[in-house]
Amino acid sequence: MTTTPETRATRTIARCRDLARLTEVPGETTRLFLSEATRDAHGLIRMWMTLANLETRTDDAGNLRALRRCGTPNAPTLLFFSHIDTVPNAGAFDGPLGVILALTVIEEIATAQLPFDIELIAFSEEEGVRFSFPFLSSKAVTGQLTPEELAKEDANGITVAQALTNFGLNPANIATSCALPANTFAALEVHIEQGPVLEAEGRELAVVDSIVGQSRLTLTFTGHANHAGATPMHLRHDALAAAAHWISDVERFALDDKQLVATVGRVEVQPNAGNVVPGTVRASLDVRHPSDDDRHAAVAMLLTKAELAAQHRGVHVQAEIQLQQKAVPMDHNLTAQLAEAAERAGYNPLRLFSGAGHDAMILAPHVPTAMLFLRSPGGLSHHPDESVSEEDVEAAIATTLAFVAALQPPQ
Amino acid sequence: MTTTPETRATRTIARCRDLARLTEVPGETTRLFLSEATRDAHGLIRMWMTLANLETRTDDAGNLRALRRCGTPNAPTLLFFSHIDTVPNAGAFDGPLGVILALTVIEEIATAQLPFDIELIAFSEEEGVRFSFPFLSSKAVTGQLTPEELAKEDANGITVAQALTNFGLNPANIATSCALPANTFAALEVHIEQGPVLEAEGRELAVVDSIVGQSRLTLTFTGHANHAGATPMHLRHDALAAAAHWISDVERFALDDKQLVATVGRVEVQPNAGNVVPGTVRASLDVRHPSDDDRHAAVAMLLTKAELAAQHRGVHVQAEIQLQQKAVPMDHNLTAQLAEAAERAGYNPLRLFSGAGHDAMILAPHVPTAMLFLRSPGGLSHHPDESVSEEDVEAAIATTLAFVAALQPPQ
Repeated sequence: MTTTPETRATRTIARCRDLARLTEVPGETTRLFLSEATRDAHGLIRMWMTLANLETRTDDAGNLRALRRCGTPNAPTLLFFSHIDTVPNAGAFDGPLGVILALTVIEEIATAQLPFDIELIAFSEEEGVRFSFPFLSSKAVTGQLTPEELAKEDANGITVAQALTNFGLNPANIATSCALPANTFAALEVHIEQGPVLEAEGRELAVVDSIVGQSRLTLTFTGHANHAGATPMHLRHDALAAAAHWISDVERFALDDKQLVATVGRVEVQPNAGNVVPGTVRASLDVRHPSDDDRHAAVAMLLTKAELAAQHRGVHVQAEIQLQQKAVPMDHNLTAQLAEAAERAGYNPLRLFSGAGHDAMILAPHVPTAMLFLRSPGGLSHHPDESVSEEDVEAAIATTLAFVAALQPPQ
Repeated sequence: MTTTPETRATRTIARCRDLARLTEVPGETTRLFLSEATRDAHGLIRMWMTLANLETRTDDAGNLRALRRCGTPNAPTLLFFSHIDTVPNAGAFDGPLGVILALTVIEEIATAQLPFDIELIAFSEEEGVRFSFPFLSSKAVTGQLTPEELAKEDANGITVAQALTNFGLNPANIATSCALPANTFAALEVHIEQGPVLEAEGRELAVVDSIVGQSRLTLTFTGHANHAGATPMHLRHDALAAAAHWISDVERFALDDKQLVATVGRVEVQPNAGNVVPGTVRASLDVRHPSDDDRHAAVAMLLTKAELAAQHRGVHVQAEIQLQQKAVPMDHNLTAQLAEAAERAGYNPLRLFSGAGHDAMILAPHVPTAMLFLRSPGGLSHHPDESVSEEDVEAAIATTLAFVAALQPPQ
């Protein structure tokens, strides 16, 4: 296929918008793992892949895979990947853009002679919505999917294994049919930033240095529920006043470290009545930092601040750790090559830490992995208004083409 | 009836505990307006009233009333009152104590010659649970119950008027059958404090100077919901960070004025997910002060502080006033007489503002009204563990007896 009067960027965006019409919920884009909408999406993408002369198959974890052979037997493999499942009421680009943009790149180099094969994988599960845990696909292709995970149930009591079987797949074959080619020497995920940094900095693209580590905790502040009229201020043990003081501390502390983000996103107050001094507050804490040591230090400091805010009011506080996830660096050399490719293509990419988790984080410990971010207008994602600009998509296509053109498999 | 080997205080407490067993919900005390439990409570209290040689009747708002005649036709009337309905899963004393303690006092003066009649009213509705508005009974006896209020429905779609009819009453007769005696010259409500002040000050009793005014508002902080990992701190518009800063301000500001209480009791966060920067927070504000001017000034200052906390973060804040209720002073002379009576009885009562609303607040604009508070152990109320001590109940009985003994109707 050659470039039509519509540009390759327009075509890429149009295909993402076509895919967004394949949904379980009419009027919005909701496409969970192994839904009928997944089957429809496979059908459409497989058609585009086939038109691009790629060999397609669906592996036993439900991932749609396409292979561009270079002609040399046992050639090394370059991997492109991203995911095609969505959150509920999603936009068109979180995930699908990485798959469709890679397909555009493969179409653009249709006649090129390359010293490696290219595999493109459309992961069917990344968001973790249906079975309440994320990265199912990338875990499957790196041999990390456990029997416990295969036994997890969705809201209707259907296990992962049953869902795979119902989709016509054989979960017993996951290890063999999903494994990455043994000689995969480079992997690239293109993804929207889902944050406001590129827009704030006026850049099209960022090269991701690492995916930050993350701590998730729940803090419970326990005071005394009392009558809001009959209890003078100095005799209160107000769990919300303590939590609010601490939430302000969290914000102030995180503002002092440019690489740190700390978020209290969920708050539940008991009894949560306007005329009762709050007795109990449960609050979430989400802390992310590219340095694991700095993240642990930040969590410890924020827990101390919670203790102080509570003690001061005769309130008790208890913290429970829900998740501790280490930072995952992208491959140093491959990331440098990606940045150089962007510059050769005429762009000046930012270097960013990804604050969000991505499949790249699961693959990176197994194959050299790099990640390219596109600007997210308004920082908007997980929302029907999520968008990308044609200019930024062209920047990502041009960068990826330059990256592929210069890529040398190890000798 | 004369004092038995059990003291009059023990008897008073025991009767409150007997009443607490009359409930709609087995295993707890829940007695809503005009429930079958109300009928049972009427039966038991009417029996005690009859044994005390009082004339009893139920008025057409469902209030149980007892009259002690002094023998002189058209004598002036002293009124005792409190309520016998409860909140769900209540204690035994919030309301019933004021009725039963007044009955004990009437029993103690069985043979006394007084220059006035005494009416004791057990209000059947104060808490506002069944029909979602409070003070139904005291409004009825002061001619303030409106047709709109009679048309209000409970959770089963039954109106106040229907509920009265079903109970065997005639709502059309409320004006005539409920009105207070025209020559009522004094009214007294005895009630538990429901707060921690008397306990903190080591006193048995307080004389209530006024019931504080109250403002209730809802503030809505609107920022932007964003990805907690992908949005750096300085690019956030975190509605919860703004609200939390303000909640700390509310606490700090109210601590500076001993007569002011300000409470944020209810907080609702959207989307309320640990990994999303909060986009919207709705928070209640309850402000009470014995001075209406000071209360209005406090509300204005707290709204300014909300503006500042929001602006600083690029967050928008909007306030909606739900309730503005003026402070209601108790009768100055009657309150002084009550305080002197307590001193003659050997006690040293505090002077308090009531932070909670009471029927006394509804009656005070119509008849000279005073109010006596008993210490609440642990400040506990609206809770099954709500209690009173025998010593404090005796203090309230002795004070009320001294008050009655010295009371002179106007010439």
